[in-house]
Amino acid sequence: MEMKFLGTGAGVPSKERNVSAIALNLTEEINHIWLFDCGEATQHQILHTNLKPRKINKIFITHLHGDHIYGLPGLLSSRSFLNGDDLLTVYGPPGIKEYINTSLSISGTHLTYPLEIIEFSEGVLFEDKTFKVSTFLLDHGIPSYGFRIEEVDKLGELNVEKLKSEGINPGPIYKTIKSQASTLLEDGRIIKREDFIGKSKKGRIICIFGDTRFNDNFKQYALNADLLVHEATFEGAREDLAYDYFHSTTKQAATLAKHASVKKLILTHISSRYQNGAINDLLKEAKNIFEPTLIAHDFLSYTIKQE
Amino acid sequence: MEMKFLGTGAGVPSKERNVSAIALNLTEEINHIWLFDCGEATQHQILHTNLKPRKINKIFITHLHGDHIYGLPGLLSSRSFLNGDDLLTVYGPPGIKEYINTSLSISGTHLTYPLEIIEFSEGVLFEDKTFKVSTFLLDHGIPSYGFRIEEVDKLGELNVEKLKSEGINPGPIYKTIKSQASTLLEDGRIIKREDFIGKSKKGRIICIFGDTRFNDNFKQYALNADLLVHEATFEGAREDLAYDYFHSTTKQAATLAKHASVKKLILTHISSRYQNGAINDLLKEAKNIFEPTLIAHDFLSYTIKQE
Repeated sequence: MEMKFLGTGAGVPSKERNVSAIALNLTEEINHIWLFDCGEATQHQILHTNLKPRKINKIFITHLHGDHIYGLPGLLSSRSFLNGDDLLTVYGPPGIKEYINTSLSISGTHLTYPLEIIEFSEGVLFEDKTFKVSTFLLDHGIPSYGFRIEEVDKLGELNVEKLKSEGINPGPIYKTIKSQASTLLEDGRIIKREDFIGKSKKGRIICIFGDTRFNDNFKQYALNADLLVHEATFEGAREDLAYDYFHSTTKQAATLAKHASVKKLILTHISSRYQNGAINDLLKEAKNIFEPTLIAHDFLSYTIKQE
Repeated sequence: MEMKFLGTGAGVPSKERNVSAIALNLTEEINHIWLFDCGEATQHQILHTNLKPRKINKIFITHLHGDHIYGLPGLLSSRSFLNGDDLLTVYGPPGIKEYINTSLSISGTHLTYPLEIIEFSEGVLFEDKTFKVSTFLLDHGIPSYGFRIEEVDKLGELNVEKLKSEGINPGPIYKTIKSQASTLLEDGRIIKREDFIGKSKKGRIICIFGDTRFNDNFKQYALNADLLVHEATFEGAREDLAYDYFHSTTKQAATLAKHASVKKLILTHISSRYQNGAINDLLKEAKNIFEPTLIAHDFLSYTIKQE
């Protein structure tokens, strides 16, 4: 599970930072890539990575501001050119459907794959045997959402030595034992899985917040996450600007991370007013509040390890 | 008058060529820049030039395919951020208005400058004391247009020596003499401008074609142009593909340039199937038909000199 930042700037692209997009590479887990936001030229950024657009099967949009969505029509079109043929689902706030459909239809674009567009408000977006994704409303000029991605816990390893010592030898029966709570053996014994299985692996939790003002109540959404990605458009001293423009500061994001007891915080959506040395200052003030903080830059790769 | 190619690829962006956009830098003539097409990430390409988005006051769209328009909403928005405050006019085929308005409205974008969107069919788009721009329909899968930009001829220089020899000394009267066909002097004499003025400077003619199949009749639109910019999506041998996809080959574009007696041809909209050496081959086959040919690359700059 690798997160790749494709655009880490705020509002307008600059030479250093493109507008918002994050790829969550789940190739190892489910052989797919998920995208969070899709600012203009996200497909161009992808050209400089090893990510394959045809592997993107879900795109989550935090909110409809241009720097988060203007790359969608181009990416959707190019996925056709690049032999994408399986279902792509876009989740976004109401309005995303009209935006995508108008852009594709006026440009005469015919996709080679089925496209499903789901407009959400709050709650669970979907839940399957691997992941549950839910969304929650933040505080921005227009409706802006965060996403909480929870990986389903994985069963531990079968204790092969113990099975063998009970006279149960390796074979298809091991898969059966692992797949159900109890198994009737041919010899009439009933085996309980819990007696032969190691500690289960806790699923990872990732929270990606859209643009938002700070609100301490939002910590509930990030609670105990392995990784929180939060915007930090402004430096700690500019809470006034952050409030006026419905954004957050470094210090506010770090405070939220601390209160939510997350393991790691990555700050993104950095205003272009901050360059070089100023970025180090932003990092320092966040670290003073919450030490395990990083500031994202375009193409930053971060692996979320399972404990 | 300088033409700067911002995107010279076909269909999808590649690392080498972005999708279509051309800037015509008229800073010397009228202190403005005109843009022809605006594929995704055109504003990103502009970041790598000395062009100022606030100086762009006219954008001409050849047709509505995504690789020619998906950069519009982002560029229009960023022009606001970058202190653009004077009128911007977008000329495009019917549909462009709905595309722009939907994109801006759904993303909650409020421009800081007046935006005028003019949907055209064929004919003269405008004519003022410096330029006349007209548009004509080509042959593509959807309506696709070309633009003919004609600079108004400039009056020659006043023959100061001759004026002096007639006893007319330098002063505001010179401006008056130049501005009208004949002038009544204080001493009662009538001076005809044509007797005291040098050869007028012929206005330049530039033709920019949108995506199109070859049709020899289209030479009328490019007649005697100083510069013709034409698409060449395919190599000379692939007329079949060009026909099927409503595009042109190098040889067809060169043939048109020759028949239209233009002075210079620049080929653009090059398919990503052609790289490095293959580009030289494309150039060679065009030059065999029309020698003064160039193949554009991203950021190619070409100065159109006045004779």
